[in-house]
Amino acid sequence: MSKAIVSREQDYSQWYNEIVIKAGLADYSAVKGCMVIKPYGYAIWERMQRVLDDMFKETGHSNAYFPLFIPKSFFSKEASHVEGFAKECAVVTHYRLKNSPEGIVVDETAKLEEELIVRPTSETIIWNTYKGWIQSYRDLPLLINQWANVVRWEMRTRLFLRTTEFLWQEGHTAHSTAEEAVAETVQMLNIYAKFAEEWMSMPVIKGVKSANERFAGAVDTYCIESLMQDGKALQAGTSHFLGQNFAKAFDVKFLNKEGKSDFVWATSWGVSTRLMGALVMTHSDDEGLVLPPMLAPHQVVIVPIYREEEQYKKINEVVDKLKKEFITENIRTLYLDDDNHSPGWKFAEYELKGVPVRLAIGPKDLEKGTVEVYRRDTRQKQFIPIDGITNYVKNLLQEIQKNLYDKALVFRNANTVKVDDYSSFKEILDKKGGLLLAHWDGTSETEEKIKEETKATIRCIPLNGEQEEGKCIYSGKSSKQRVIFAKAY
Amino acid sequence: MSKAIVSREQDYSQWYNEIVIKAGLADYSAVKGCMVIKPYGYAIWERMQRVLDDMFKETGHSNAYFPLFIPKSFFSKEASHVEGFAKECAVVTHYRLKNSPEGIVVDETAKLEEELIVRPTSETIIWNTYKGWIQSYRDLPLLINQWANVVRWEMRTRLFLRTTEFLWQEGHTAHSTAEEAVAETVQMLNIYAKFAEEWMSMPVIKGVKSANERFAGAVDTYCIESLMQDGKALQAGTSHFLGQNFAKAFDVKFLNKEGKSDFVWATSWGVSTRLMGALVMTHSDDEGLVLPPMLAPHQVVIVPIYREEEQYKKINEVVDKLKKEFITENIRTLYLDDDNHSPGWKFAEYELKGVPVRLAIGPKDLEKGTVEVYRRDTRQKQFIPIDGITNYVKNLLQEIQKNLYDKALVFRNANTVKVDDYSSFKEILDKKGGLLLAHWDGTSETEEKIKEETKATIRCIPLNGEQEEGKCIYSGKSSKQRVIFAKAY
Repeated sequence: MSKAIVSREQDYSQWYNEIVIKAGLADYSAVKGCMVIKPYGYAIWERMQRVLDDMFKETGHSNAYFPLFIPKSFFSKEASHVEGFAKECAVVTHYRLKNSPEGIVVDETAKLEEELIVRPTSETIIWNTYKGWIQSYRDLPLLINQWANVVRWEMRTRLFLRTTEFLWQEGHTAHSTAEEAVAETVQMLNIYAKFAEEWMSMPVIKGVKSANERFAGAVDTYCIESLMQDGKALQAGTSHFLGQNFAKAFDVKFLNKEGKSDFVWATSWGVSTRLMGALVMTHSDDEGLVLPPMLAPHQVVIVPIYREEEQYKKINEVVDKLKKEFITENIRTLYLDDDNHSPGWKFAEYELKGVPVRLAIGPKDLEKGTVEVYRRDTRQKQFIPIDGITNYVKNLLQEIQKNLYDKALVFRNANTVKVDDYSSFKEILDKKGGLLLAHWDGTSETEEKIKEETKATIRCIPLNGEQEEGKCIYSGKSSKQRVIFAKAY
Repeated sequence: MSKAIVSREQDYSQWYNEIVIKAGLADYSAVKGCMVIKPYGYAIWERMQRVLDDMFKETGHSNAYFPLFIPKSFFSKEASHVEGFAKECAVVTHYRLKNSPEGIVVDETAKLEEELIVRPTSETIIWNTYKGWIQSYRDLPLLINQWANVVRWEMRTRLFLRTTEFLWQEGHTAHSTAEEAVAETVQMLNIYAKFAEEWMSMPVIKGVKSANERFAGAVDTYCIESLMQDGKALQAGTSHFLGQNFAKAFDVKFLNKEGKSDFVWATSWGVSTRLMGALVMTHSDDEGLVLPPMLAPHQVVIVPIYREEEQYKKINEVVDKLKKEFITENIRTLYLDDDNHSPGWKFAEYELKGVPVRLAIGPKDLEKGTVEVYRRDTRQKQFIPIDGITNYVKNLLQEIQKNLYDKALVFRNANTVKVDDYSSFKEILDKKGGLLLAHWDGTSETEEKIKEETKATIRCIPLNGEQEEGKCIYSGKSSKQRVIFAKAY
């Protein structure tokens, strides 16, 4: 059991898939490109949702729900938006099936007059709705979020990272000034970064996208970017300043305090089940999943080790007391006392499932008054006195949370390099990947050429990047700030 | 402002729609039959979700997520299931749009080989998945729930009560014996009944559906039925014993403890945003929405009444103290101290929004040390000393919760009658509706005839109905138990 999965070095991509499937996070489905999120994976997603939802509400947002379907004509109203999404839309054309000699078939008499698009994102249907909700500055700001499923028809899919259907939240806010909308965009970016770093233990770089990588319909797209263990970058969340683009497309105006009519300013922002993929890739190792304690469904598993019923009873007494103490301290605990599996199986299974701390208690431990404590992140084992174990575990969970972040940060720093010439740039990308800080002349043409030749894209223009004179690694033209290039998921 | 909505007597149907829209629960959308759930309505739905989800988890269920799309062929595998849903299926046939001289059109070259159905319910995709998850009795029971959106193409829609897309939860469990599956079915029915009665203050009757009203693919459908103020019944939740129907359709077998192979036993159960409609119709009055405190987003609103800034400051001090006490007691409070609206507007608005308790504090109250307390359910006003107000409000909220239930029960009892002849049956249905307890010969033919002639259906065969010899009101054939007939939503 100890080597249930392939190692990262052997095959990184397969390593990832095996963890997702064998740890019980998700499964392939019968529908091409769609996944099934299994209970263990969904429990992590639920924790993510709860934390983010609380953060949204603390900053004044409310949840609502808008239709799954979007009339095709809505899509065409914002020119760059339809350009961005038209090629990956699932289209509903009929609303009835019928019996036929060949079996169940689509009823051709039940054809929709106007086709409906399964939402790939909801700006259009929401701004069409906002038109009825916004009349004056008194109706603003409108701060709404929705938790929903969306569909983008992808040709090449990966569990969690890129699936045809995925779950996400999408915030859509309306404001009376550009300044306020920009402030909202940045606020949500900061919330995403805080969530990634404090809850997922995943360091991120905050930045702005180049025009090529911008959301279809946005004026500016802000993002958080993280680095995975294979040297590829992953965009973990985006927050868009939409200017007045959607307000203009859907004719949403408001009367300001001076009684003048103006178009409303907008933002949208989202994170998705893709975060699950980022979580797996950031921390896991060749033994399986590694979870940061703050998001782990079970923070601690307790495994009893015994041969005789009498031993089990004694262990049980100790564990009962422990469990109560753990509940008081809000430590999420799972006691693995079923008979169906051996202790060895349980060790291997919960190693694979990434539970941060494992306690094992056997007859010898009872004699000595100790517990075997194993931490998943460093794979270290220690014997700790039962007296005071609750406090020990509580601190250990905090330490693991921090250690995972520190480890990921060390990795990222070790794989972030300043590059000043194009041949080194290509060589580094080829050999080890990582984040490449390089000067760029600011043109889409150069970005596209570099992408064609190296597959690297500009992940972001860092928000807190230092101003520095330099020359574009590709064109040699002048540049004032390094941007981050990387191959990306 | 006081008469913002039409009365129940004038037009019950319009009364309902006006409450839903004007209280900010939901709105019509640009997509035929689909609604927008607005923030205030969604906040109530979120509370419902949270409570139900906790109840599901306490009884051992986990959440998961299955694809939105179902391959057409899956549908055909369970004969009565496809029969039941074929006529209301949204069908995805293409996966790309393109530009054309006529604008954006469906790209005919991107046609799916097999059409996908937008799930109207997920038994088929889930049982196809369970096939890969279940091998032996050790994998059972499998207790899974999903929160999701579903689509049933309805021709006549009503906000919350019947919409093309709606939100719901659907539990899908797998068991090794019929007994265990039946017990699960009943357990979930009881959870729904408890939720309806204790949280929604809505009395329900637990029963079993007749064959005509059974879920497509079920052996038995259990349900909770409630009575609305217009004398129509509303099915508020269903729990199905599916026998081995879906296991056989998808070939899901398991090895039992004796090492023999058998088909797995199944249940499914669900409640939806329809509960929102039931909530509105059970308690609301001609002044607007009335919410049971346990589900109200705001249990208390506080309205300051003042002319001068100095008065406002003093009121604020008192309210600050109150709010802190309320938070300690988990009383959800909204302080309406914005300047945009008059106290009169605030009174009317939150009357319409059904907030259970309103406190008003003005300069005179400060002098006397009292607060004006208004309860939404009875529309009574009282002056209560500020000292001890927290405790008073806490008890009042409990009293309102109970009073709403009692009132609804009195109404239901007053509108539940035993009927023994068909002419009285028709007369009562015509004149006032309600629940009619009548003998029935147990045949689908009789049930259909009665439905054709009166529009009444058998809502359920009550689980705790007394055994009593009688004659079918329609056919005169013998019967052993009265069933409940009613016109229904």
